[in-house]
Amino acid sequence: MAGAFVVKGCQKIGGPQIRNLLEAKDFFLFDCDGVIWHGEKAVSGAPAVVNSLIRRGKNVFFVTNNCTRPRESYVHKFSRLGFTDVILEQIFSSSYCSALYLRDVVKVRGQVFVIGCDGLRRELQEAGIPCVEEANDPDATIYDCPLAADVKAVLVGHDDKMTFLKLAKASCYLRDPECVFLATDNDPWHPLSGGRILPGSGSLTAALEVASGRKATVIGKPSRFMFECISSQFSGVDPAQCLMVGDRLEVDMLFGSNCGLDTMLTLTGVSQIEEAQEYRDSELTSNHSFVPDYVVDTIADFLPAFEELEEQSS
Amino acid sequence: MAGAFVVKGCQKIGGPQIRNLLEAKDFFLFDCDGVIWHGEKAVSGAPAVVNSLIRRGKNVFFVTNNCTRPRESYVHKFSRLGFTDVILEQIFSSSYCSALYLRDVVKVRGQVFVIGCDGLRRELQEAGIPCVEEANDPDATIYDCPLAADVKAVLVGHDDKMTFLKLAKASCYLRDPECVFLATDNDPWHPLSGGRILPGSGSLTAALEVASGRKATVIGKPSRFMFECISSQFSGVDPAQCLMVGDRLEVDMLFGSNCGLDTMLTLTGVSQIEEAQEYRDSELTSNHSFVPDYVVDTIADFLPAFEELEEQSS
Repeated sequence: MAGAFVVKGCQKIGGPQIRNLLEAKDFFLFDCDGVIWHGEKAVSGAPAVVNSLIRRGKNVFFVTNNCTRPRESYVHKFSRLGFTDVILEQIFSSSYCSALYLRDVVKVRGQVFVIGCDGLRRELQEAGIPCVEEANDPDATIYDCPLAADVKAVLVGHDDKMTFLKLAKASCYLRDPECVFLATDNDPWHPLSGGRILPGSGSLTAALEVASGRKATVIGKPSRFMFECISSQFSGVDPAQCLMVGDRLEVDMLFGSNCGLDTMLTLTGVSQIEEAQEYRDSELTSNHSFVPDYVVDTIADFLPAFEELEEQSS
Repeated sequence: MAGAFVVKGCQKIGGPQIRNLLEAKDFFLFDCDGVIWHGEKAVSGAPAVVNSLIRRGKNVFFVTNNCTRPRESYVHKFSRLGFTDVILEQIFSSSYCSALYLRDVVKVRGQVFVIGCDGLRRELQEAGIPCVEEANDPDATIYDCPLAADVKAVLVGHDDKMTFLKLAKASCYLRDPECVFLATDNDPWHPLSGGRILPGSGSLTAALEVASGRKATVIGKPSRFMFECISSQFSGVDPAQCLMVGDRLEVDMLFGSNCGLDTMLTLTGVSQIEEAQEYRDSELTSNHSFVPDYVVDTIADFLPAFEELEEQSS
């Protein structure tokens, strides 16, 4: 039986192999956007898959680089979109994990200067981390604006209200080599409808890296830290029993690979199977970390496997 | 006599060697900020040096990555700060050269989307290149704002009114592989008083490179293009007869090196002699392009050489 999923490297799988995976794995990590939903619309069949996994006693986690919402707001979204069995503790967003990093790893004493949305600030406040309050003065410039004296970290995430002044202030704070430089994630861009794109945190982080001459510590995927957060909060998380499901080769598959997890690419999001095959066939060994173990058209492909398992057990 | 300046690599020079250089070179290229002035203050002695060079019949050019002013405004600044003999044709700014590139190299047909100051737009208009007019709607978002249909180039320079929306729009325009991607320069940051810094064009360009997944063509130093602009407008510009004087190793010295010019670092600006020596002693060959041939404390060190030459000729 094991032979059905032993061949690795970009394997498009269906019915029986998916059933085997469902039986073999205890921990299912899902990226969100492009995997279980697109913005405010659930991927067809995804709620049934997630709810079924949870009801079968599988450990399900959501690892998202989206840093614009606090976890509480995610719980509402999950519920609104039909993922009725998801609770707060299953959600590991880059904003939540950034707050954990600042509180538990850096143990930051002082304020954090945030480039990011309100949701990111709220997640930090939730963790008891003070953020610099921004005065909303449209005439302020970097030449004469006040700078806070006790900024001990700069955290960059997606910020659709990014301004030159914020970038300049952050650059000034980072002149202090003791000031920690964090990024929620390194996502370069996100697809919008009509062929438009949204610059991601990685874009703003790059600007600040150049201006400061420093490199940010990245919290989100593909860094291992989010997996470490899961492992520290749940006992018995064995990488060999995990499956990471995502839609971006350079983010999700690399994350899985960095953490020693089996990986599955779903084709409902950014990356195409042809790109995965190119990485697989590449002579550059480092490219192999982007290759998924398995590929499905959509996670709704899990549904027939559940039905089969139901039939077996009934 | 020639022996006095034949030893290359970071040579701190004074009186006689400077006099030899003055006699040997016909073309003097100066960076501006940190070399001949600091913001609105001339470097002490610099106006006398520049005026003397011009009066002695030397060809003097100014090659600046500062893209915030049109050349006309530079002429006023030169005059205001005591550089009374400088005329428009001697000034090669990255904004002027970007306009030349778009008009004469790209031969752009359509509009240019500009991330930059008014001065940059004015330079383009001067060259007959239409720029997209930005509506000043504070509620506009990348989800629903209008995008111009005929944008054939995106040009990024220093922009202290940079916003997330501008970055997002530029990223969308660059989805079209036919759309040219230019940067006035790649300067990472600029020093301000009080230890503050100002993010440079290079910082904004990095953000856009990540968001678009493309690389910008850079017009300013250290790219050769500004030297090519000089050569195309003045006859007989022989690299062997040129001296490039600047304050940034990674910008000015590399520019000189890329164009085959002798280079001089002046210590009135960003780079320190110790950094130059580190590059000289580095085992990485590519670092040697950052090493100046000569080093002076300030270009005012030219003044005694002029006096000696005056005495000789009187």
